[in-house]
Amino acid sequence: MTGSVLSRIPLPVSWTEDGSAIRLLDQTLLPGEERYLRLETVEAVAEAIRSLRVRGAPAIGIAAAFGLAIGVMRRVEAGEPDLPDGMEKDRKHLLSTRPTAVNLAWALERVAGAFFRAEEGPQARVAAVTEEANRVAEEDRELCRLMGEHGLDVIPEEGASILTHCNAGALATGGMGTALAPIYAATARGIPVKVFADETRPLLQGARLTSWELSRAGVEVTVITDSMAGALMKAGGVNLVITGTDRVAANGDVANKIGTYGVAVLAREHGIPFYVASPRSTFDPRAKSGAEIPIEERDGGEIRGEGERRIVPPEVQVWNPAFDVTPAHLVTAFITDGGILRPPYDVAIARLLESDAPSG
Amino acid sequence: MTGSVLSRIPLPVSWTEDGSAIRLLDQTLLPGEERYLRLETVEAVAEAIRSLRVRGAPAIGIAAAFGLAIGVMRRVEAGEPDLPDGMEKDRKHLLSTRPTAVNLAWALERVAGAFFRAEEGPQARVAAVTEEANRVAEEDRELCRLMGEHGLDVIPEEGASILTHCNAGALATGGMGTALAPIYAATARGIPVKVFADETRPLLQGARLTSWELSRAGVEVTVITDSMAGALMKAGGVNLVITGTDRVAANGDVANKIGTYGVAVLAREHGIPFYVASPRSTFDPRAKSGAEIPIEERDGGEIRGEGERRIVPPEVQVWNPAFDVTPAHLVTAFITDGGILRPPYDVAIARLLESDAPSG
Repeated sequence: MTGSVLSRIPLPVSWTEDGSAIRLLDQTLLPGEERYLRLETVEAVAEAIRSLRVRGAPAIGIAAAFGLAIGVMRRVEAGEPDLPDGMEKDRKHLLSTRPTAVNLAWALERVAGAFFRAEEGPQARVAAVTEEANRVAEEDRELCRLMGEHGLDVIPEEGASILTHCNAGALATGGMGTALAPIYAATARGIPVKVFADETRPLLQGARLTSWELSRAGVEVTVITDSMAGALMKAGGVNLVITGTDRVAANGDVANKIGTYGVAVLAREHGIPFYVASPRSTFDPRAKSGAEIPIEERDGGEIRGEGERRIVPPEVQVWNPAFDVTPAHLVTAFITDGGILRPPYDVAIARLLESDAPSG
Repeated sequence: MTGSVLSRIPLPVSWTEDGSAIRLLDQTLLPGEERYLRLETVEAVAEAIRSLRVRGAPAIGIAAAFGLAIGVMRRVEAGEPDLPDGMEKDRKHLLSTRPTAVNLAWALERVAGAFFRAEEGPQARVAAVTEEANRVAEEDRELCRLMGEHGLDVIPEEGASILTHCNAGALATGGMGTALAPIYAATARGIPVKVFADETRPLLQGARLTSWELSRAGVEVTVITDSMAGALMKAGGVNLVITGTDRVAANGDVANKIGTYGVAVLAREHGIPFYVASPRSTFDPRAKSGAEIPIEERDGGEIRGEGERRIVPPEVQVWNPAFDVTPAHLVTAFITDGGILRPPYDVAIARLLESDAPSG
């Protein structure tokens, strides 16, 4: 069972078999088509990130790390004399694709650091950046695995029916995902789990991506519109909620995909536990509370639709915040790579961040 | 001001200027195109109802009433000998278009009754059915007007910002709508009102219809996805909610478009009053509570999408309840044609239903 579930979890970014290029799942074509692109240049990787063919902060970081390594490989193959200069150009190029993504800058920093720490000589440089890019991917994979293991503690042995919002799954990471990790871990152990996925307007990551990756791995999944979560809970259809997060403040306030807050309020109303899966890197001790987390407002076209798919009259306004903030008091517990955190969160989060990361 | 607002409220069903045909707004083309169809036969009216070119229980009833009158006109013009038999055929034809619509059967019953009560002779029959159909429309128009007047009591004189869900507006009725009636009434009196419209997945009546009719009448309206209502309330963006309803039980439980319940829970969480606009015909004293109101489950294709617009993988399940039930304790008050109802609702509703309807 374990093997079959885990082997069916998709990997959004990896090396091609011969190690000379990047194999990247084009997520813009999902769920209609599962097409893997072979990316051989920095420009191709940059285009894939820019065009959202890969999305989810950890997966973007991994793609960028692999992309920077590919850049060094190509420059070495071409016999370029000034490798450091070329590498810095590639780094800037990749960094410009999604300027606000924290993982992107961090992953590029790691690979660039390995480049400079490596012994001189082109082959040593290639080996160093490739190893560091692999380490970025491997560490993320391990974080996901740990969240999956710890998350098992909150999943009932029988009758688990879990609501999730957006996509915090394998497609967004280098492993089993964050919110979906405990679901995969439970399924792999033969613990029966049913999942309901909010479709997650406006970009429909739940309908398109979460449902696709779960069903591909053999997990029973049902899609609902975001507006159905209340009726589902009232009907007794779910007994816990697990979501991911984009940033957690020092007090436990959670910024996540728009709609998460509404789900949390409904969960509390129905006495259903509401869990947030978060690797320690997503806790931001500089933000004292959710009020200090800036909320990105995105283009209204995502709601209006385009061309023939336009649904809102042109003269009508739209409001399109990408995230909302769920106050800490609505969060039952955090599922982290360092274990389950329970209130008081200021203490639990500070303790988590002081402890050593499991990967050293 | 009054005149200009009221004159810009769309009328989904009316007679053509010469009175020989029905003028029907094709709502399937909204908001892209405002096209009025000229319907001259019972078959054309039946097709329009069946294809959802007209929707909303009161508007369907009016279309059917006008349709049955058109049928009698056409048979008289053709000199048919057995008018009662022809009229019964037309009635069955129209009744078959939306078998579950209560207003449809009721409106046809009224016109058929007028037919049989009329003096013999084709011209008297035509006059009787036309008058009765007009009465059905006129009464609905008056109910809407009264809900608008009474609803003014709950709208603040300054800074009103109202959230609504789905379309309970002019497009669904023969007048100013139910939930939107107080908004039009306030605007007509120069009371400034801002509206937020939930897009209302899966069929997007809020994005497509509510936004269209409000902006056409000069009311400021902003569309949000259903998942944004919580963030909007938390940001202080709205100070009251008004929705329509499909059926109200004797205890005040409210069946309405899926998602209404979630909005009501969020409104309570934020201390925002939640009002339900309902003509007295929508109160159902036979249903003791919401548990006795059957909830229609609709085709999953509405969520999955179709063809190129398909968004959910074919192997994934969907759940698509069309309505949910909001418990009475979350309803601040009902806005009815007979005034504002406040708790205890069992008493208030019984009193409303015992009193004479305003139209006699």
